[in-house]
Amino acid sequence: MSDARKYVEIERPFRMMRGVLAQAEIAYETWGELSVAGDNAVLLFTGLSPSAHAASSPLDPTTGWWEDMVGPDKPIDTNRYYVVCVNSLGSCFGSTGPASIDPSTGNPYRLRFPTLCLEDIANAGHAVIASLGISRLHSVVGASMGGMTALAYAMLHPDAATGVVLISSAARSLPFSIAVRSLQREIVRSDPTWRGGEYATDALPTVGMRLARKLGMISYRSSAEWTMRFGRERATDEPVHEAFGIDFEVESYLEAHAVRFIGTFDANCYLYLSRAMDLFDVCDHGGSLEAGLARVKAERALIIGVETDFLFPLAQQRELADGLKRTVPDVDFRVLPSIQGHDSFLVDMDRFRPAVASFF
Amino acid sequence: MSDARKYVEIERPFRMMRGVLAQAEIAYETWGELSVAGDNAVLLFTGLSPSAHAASSPLDPTTGWWEDMVGPDKPIDTNRYYVVCVNSLGSCFGSTGPASIDPSTGNPYRLRFPTLCLEDIANAGHAVIASLGISRLHSVVGASMGGMTALAYAMLHPDAATGVVLISSAARSLPFSIAVRSLQREIVRSDPTWRGGEYATDALPTVGMRLARKLGMISYRSSAEWTMRFGRERATDEPVHEAFGIDFEVESYLEAHAVRFIGTFDANCYLYLSRAMDLFDVCDHGGSLEAGLARVKAERALIIGVETDFLFPLAQQRELADGLKRTVPDVDFRVLPSIQGHDSFLVDMDRFRPAVASFF
Repeated sequence: MSDARKYVEIERPFRMMRGVLAQAEIAYETWGELSVAGDNAVLLFTGLSPSAHAASSPLDPTTGWWEDMVGPDKPIDTNRYYVVCVNSLGSCFGSTGPASIDPSTGNPYRLRFPTLCLEDIANAGHAVIASLGISRLHSVVGASMGGMTALAYAMLHPDAATGVVLISSAARSLPFSIAVRSLQREIVRSDPTWRGGEYATDALPTVGMRLARKLGMISYRSSAEWTMRFGRERATDEPVHEAFGIDFEVESYLEAHAVRFIGTFDANCYLYLSRAMDLFDVCDHGGSLEAGLARVKAERALIIGVETDFLFPLAQQRELADGLKRTVPDVDFRVLPSIQGHDSFLVDMDRFRPAVASFF
Repeated sequence: MSDARKYVEIERPFRMMRGVLAQAEIAYETWGELSVAGDNAVLLFTGLSPSAHAASSPLDPTTGWWEDMVGPDKPIDTNRYYVVCVNSLGSCFGSTGPASIDPSTGNPYRLRFPTLCLEDIANAGHAVIASLGISRLHSVVGASMGGMTALAYAMLHPDAATGVVLISSAARSLPFSIAVRSLQREIVRSDPTWRGGEYATDALPTVGMRLARKLGMISYRSSAEWTMRFGRERATDEPVHEAFGIDFEVESYLEAHAVRFIGTFDANCYLYLSRAMDLFDVCDHGGSLEAGLARVKAERALIIGVETDFLFPLAQQRELADGLKRTVPDVDFRVLPSIQGHDSFLVDMDRFRPAVASFF
């Protein structure tokens, strides 16, 4: 398979918020060309599950996770911008994480990987940018977990980005979303094949991951969307499934999504990234929401929220926009009426393309 | 332990919507006295998990699940009304269900119990009422699953009740709530100790039931309530739990609720009752929502919904009220601003007491 990934080894040891890695490598992809002035770079952080492959390119023509947003003549126009997307530290698509080999033992870290924080992912992304010789980004961009990471980046490196784009994101996780993610993690940990993180390569905790992914899908979409798409449509013409299998179309849909996911994502990496979202809190940077957000020294910010998002509800994006207005001169806050809930930024491109394009 | 339960064997065989039981018994409790005219009886159906013990009485002084609502001088005043609460057919608190002995084999039914429908629970409740010599109820009352059951009762036995009270209920389940309950059932079925329903009495699927209950709690309450109650409060003063245990207070809360539940409810009964809610659809009675609701011949109806309920959202109670207005002369639709979500009828008694009292 063709692969557009590049790799950079970041400084060693790499100091994390709650631990140290003897060495760490970050996988990333780039699109477009860095300008002579070096002022057209855009750093893109991802949500929990994607790789650095945000868009296709000659080296990897497969469709990327934000294909409609990144590319020539697209909202983040790679004819004009040099776009860098990093695979998060702690993930499993080329960057160092719990599934990587611990050089001190020769075996995977698994649960011996230090507690991961979004600040660590932000710092690892910054190390990639530094390695590319970029001193100041045009902007740092992220949606969902990626938005929280982009915010962490802007607080930790206030001079490193002129613009900040935070989509369907938050200054900290609500107890409701902590509850959902905590239950997802407990479901994975309760799969007997998880074995305290020491699962065999030929006996993965696929049941736990499938169930956790279904709960994810329930929290990522919206009730309104499913009422419109599925209603009470039956999955088969047969009478009710006697062994409590799939009766309704919405159950088929969840099953199909979950099955696609389980082969691709390492369970321990999932646990670490999921908890990093729960732990993130702007208040850890200065003692209060106001003080944390005041660390952001960008000149422009775009904040986007979606009305039907109940995992990162609109009040959280409003809180970000109101807070940033105290120090960022130009804050654009956009509310989109998409019905696909938290996932809208991946799906409702007709609304998201112009909203993001307005910033670029 | 003292016990106020009475039992009635309903007609044999008992024909269900999708099967037949050779025999069936229903457990129920009563409060107050039937009037000489026989016109003061109130039939109460429960949500998925409660028993028939809605309120304390001299025979069983323990607190009932709707203690604040049922009793002398309470909103459903047992000085005036004769209240009958049935344990649902298919449940495990005295009524026949999947955990009961199948007389044809001498062993528990388990998954050999016929597919359960809310109409069956309604018909079993009607058989109890008939056995008590009551020809017309003052009212049939239910919340959540009990509200759907009360509605089924009013459609199937249009002359049997003068009044109908439906709380946080619906004419049919939305795909969102089907998705949540389907995942809860799959979590239980995925517990290896469930063993296709053939679990041993000393090795119950407690892990699956604990996780399913946590998902239940997430769907029963509201994000607003948890933000107010827990915020980001930590469960302990210790740093982050290295093995992905409990870090936040909201996680402790879910754990405490789940642990209380797992000892009390039979897993197979839970599966049957949960699916009965998914299958229920007013449209099965006459081909459309309008035709189904038009079967209700009550004189008065009270419909209550809660603004923060996302499992049975307000639009569903509005749909009920609008539909019933076509045939029921007096429909009172009340919207309560409780913040406890779907569970508000069990918790926000200061709002629910006067709302229910207005009907009685």
